[in-house]
Amino acid sequence: MVRVAGGPPGTIDGVSLVVQKYGGTSVADPDRIMAVADHIVATRREGHDVVVVVSAMGKTTDELEALAHEVSAMPSPREMDMLLTSGERISIALLCMAIIDRGEHAVSFTGSQAGIVTDTTHRKAKIVEVKADRLREAVSDGAVAVVAGFQGVSTALDVTTLGRGGSDTTAVALAAALGAESCEIYTDVAGVFTADPRIVPGARRLEKLSYEEMLDLAATGSRVLALRSVEYARNHKVRVHVRSSFTWEPGTWIVEEEAGMEHAIISGVTDDTSEAKITLEQVPDRPGVAAKVFRALADEAINVDMIVQNVSTEGHTDISFTLPKEDLSRAHKVMEQLREDVDATGFTSDEHIGRVSLVGAGMKTNPGVAATMFEVLARESVNIEMISTSSIRISCVVQEADVVKAVRALHDAFELEKA
Amino acid sequence: MVRVAGGPPGTIDGVSLVVQKYGGTSVADPDRIMAVADHIVATRREGHDVVVVVSAMGKTTDELEALAHEVSAMPSPREMDMLLTSGERISIALLCMAIIDRGEHAVSFTGSQAGIVTDTTHRKAKIVEVKADRLREAVSDGAVAVVAGFQGVSTALDVTTLGRGGSDTTAVALAAALGAESCEIYTDVAGVFTADPRIVPGARRLEKLSYEEMLDLAATGSRVLALRSVEYARNHKVRVHVRSSFTWEPGTWIVEEEAGMEHAIISGVTDDTSEAKITLEQVPDRPGVAAKVFRALADEAINVDMIVQNVSTEGHTDISFTLPKEDLSRAHKVMEQLREDVDATGFTSDEHIGRVSLVGAGMKTNPGVAATMFEVLARESVNIEMISTSSIRISCVVQEADVVKAVRALHDAFELEKA
Repeated sequence: MVRVAGGPPGTIDGVSLVVQKYGGTSVADPDRIMAVADHIVATRREGHDVVVVVSAMGKTTDELEALAHEVSAMPSPREMDMLLTSGERISIALLCMAIIDRGEHAVSFTGSQAGIVTDTTHRKAKIVEVKADRLREAVSDGAVAVVAGFQGVSTALDVTTLGRGGSDTTAVALAAALGAESCEIYTDVAGVFTADPRIVPGARRLEKLSYEEMLDLAATGSRVLALRSVEYARNHKVRVHVRSSFTWEPGTWIVEEEAGMEHAIISGVTDDTSEAKITLEQVPDRPGVAAKVFRALADEAINVDMIVQNVSTEGHTDISFTLPKEDLSRAHKVMEQLREDVDATGFTSDEHIGRVSLVGAGMKTNPGVAATMFEVLARESVNIEMISTSSIRISCVVQEADVVKAVRALHDAFELEKA
Repeated sequence: MVRVAGGPPGTIDGVSLVVQKYGGTSVADPDRIMAVADHIVATRREGHDVVVVVSAMGKTTDELEALAHEVSAMPSPREMDMLLTSGERISIALLCMAIIDRGEHAVSFTGSQAGIVTDTTHRKAKIVEVKADRLREAVSDGAVAVVAGFQGVSTALDVTTLGRGGSDTTAVALAAALGAESCEIYTDVAGVFTADPRIVPGARRLEKLSYEEMLDLAATGSRVLALRSVEYARNHKVRVHVRSSFTWEPGTWIVEEEAGMEHAIISGVTDDTSEAKITLEQVPDRPGVAAKVFRALADEAINVDMIVQNVSTEGHTDISFTLPKEDLSRAHKVMEQLREDVDATGFTSDEHIGRVSLVGAGMKTNPGVAATMFEVLARESVNIEMISTSSIRISCVVQEADVVKAVRALHDAFELEKA
């Protein structure tokens, strides 16, 4: 946490500072932008300094990406970043105009102007430094600083983007650099829920979560917050408040685990049907085989998620792993080359899988959770294809067609609709 | 002209450098962008270094401006500049992608990255310096540098725009800073014509014009080149070639007046129906009155164009002037306050006027031109309301309804369809 001269942490010149981030649906059209401007002005008049981070309006980023594919089969990553960053430029300018119209001072900043310095990896750059002097100055001058999310400037002075969900990371990084009291992430849902409300209508909003729980929820399918932003928040101890820009009601706080924080055994059930599964069959069980397999995949920049290898039978074993569906055809090529290399008998792949996970910090001290989970799935005739666990998470890979049934049954069995 | 180490003027490292500027209609859609990329790659492979300046695609700037007016009654000029500059960002990125796809190296630059430093006047900033080091470096590395037109960064590090037609000025300024061999302005017409071809179907393309002639054509209604870019070209002796990106045929050269350059008596007839006229009646003819009138208008940032004051009769005179139609209601307020102040009997205004001008460097040595012009208009029963002349131009204000008839008759009478 950065301490600023003139006031305690969480303040500039002694006034409490809030970072507010608005996602694409929150600023999708002029009416939404004006509603957001009303809220920012109200926050300001409650006596807070406000730094705002905005995404591109609605589907702008997708539309720009489609345009790129119309002019080029393989768009240059540097130019793609130049292209996509125009989206937030539009939303920061429009939002500032609306705030100024309401009688408050507002100044827009591109990622570069806001001092978001990144490495040189186009399309998924990492923030290496935040030089927030210009923002601090604007806020000290009484302005609302409105910053373009998702973008920065590289150490080589090129425009970069932080990857999908990057605006969340921009907001958390600025909250850390400015020592903000909190980082409010406004979105189109009311917070983090015990399950996806589209699958489980009785899903309940969670009031408070630890960074670790949110990390596991994000990693296993909760789409409310980008994983990297949660990691950044944990590393810099930024208090995050996820809430709706449609109802403006309090949402879910994500904070450091406190002594005496009471944990539900299970915080939520998540689901993810974006992955496929590959099984390399009858691999000789000798040292170095797994290393060879996953190095070859890493060299092709294929993001492997779950990996399961069971005990061997007669000196052979099966290795299964999950990966994003869009990487499947590239992984097939790697597998074909590898098969002979590692003496496997063959490999199979399955695109129609889904992952169902239980996440909860209270699990650590409740050893029966896994057993109950497997019993519930068995009762629903859901076949478990892979299992992987951490101290606060259990994930099962099942058939895609069974995901909805599994999530509902688990939500029900663990009585997650009750507070 | 800037001389670059390693080669004669007009070159970087001894290779001839061309600046090419493409307007909004030239890059209106993906197909147009790919056609432009083809032409740039062909120019490159003919052995030229190429720096490209691009406008926003098609009507993007107008659409963004409309969006601003949806969220704000009076959009902040600083934020309007932030908003509008996203348009060129999109076109430079897409154009680079298309060039790279064709096997040439290309790098995009925002106005700021290209080193276009301006004053702090948002929406119509003036270029104060061009720091073209990054462009020179990119070109030396063998890349096509693609620069966002119309934009720069102010001395206060804010994003600025150069006003409508500003991309032409960007192109000419870069051509001057880089000592380019020529500055090609690609547009949707084949060059500069003896009259607007929509009014005079037999209008002829001019092959070569002096800066002075082009200045008068631009000032009196030719919309092919922005006036400021012509002034900049004249001041820095940049050879400009206006041509079509649809036919790719040679167009019109605008160059320094050369000894022995043969001048047609008349280069062209222009028309302009964007102005209104105000007449302040029966003003006492004493020193300081005109100064008072035009100072008051200047204080309201009203751009007065033609001013005519005739000799006085019995110590009183009428003062007439033209101004942009959109400034008329503001000018009315100024006139109401002024009327008593300067003891005028009243004022009248007329929105339905048009200006018809003859431009030609040969006019200097052909004193009969004005007489012929007035005779032609009289024969067509066109009443002349105001007259103003320079050494190479004669302008007459007439009723708007007479403009087309007047332009056609003058084009015919001076036989401008013949080379």
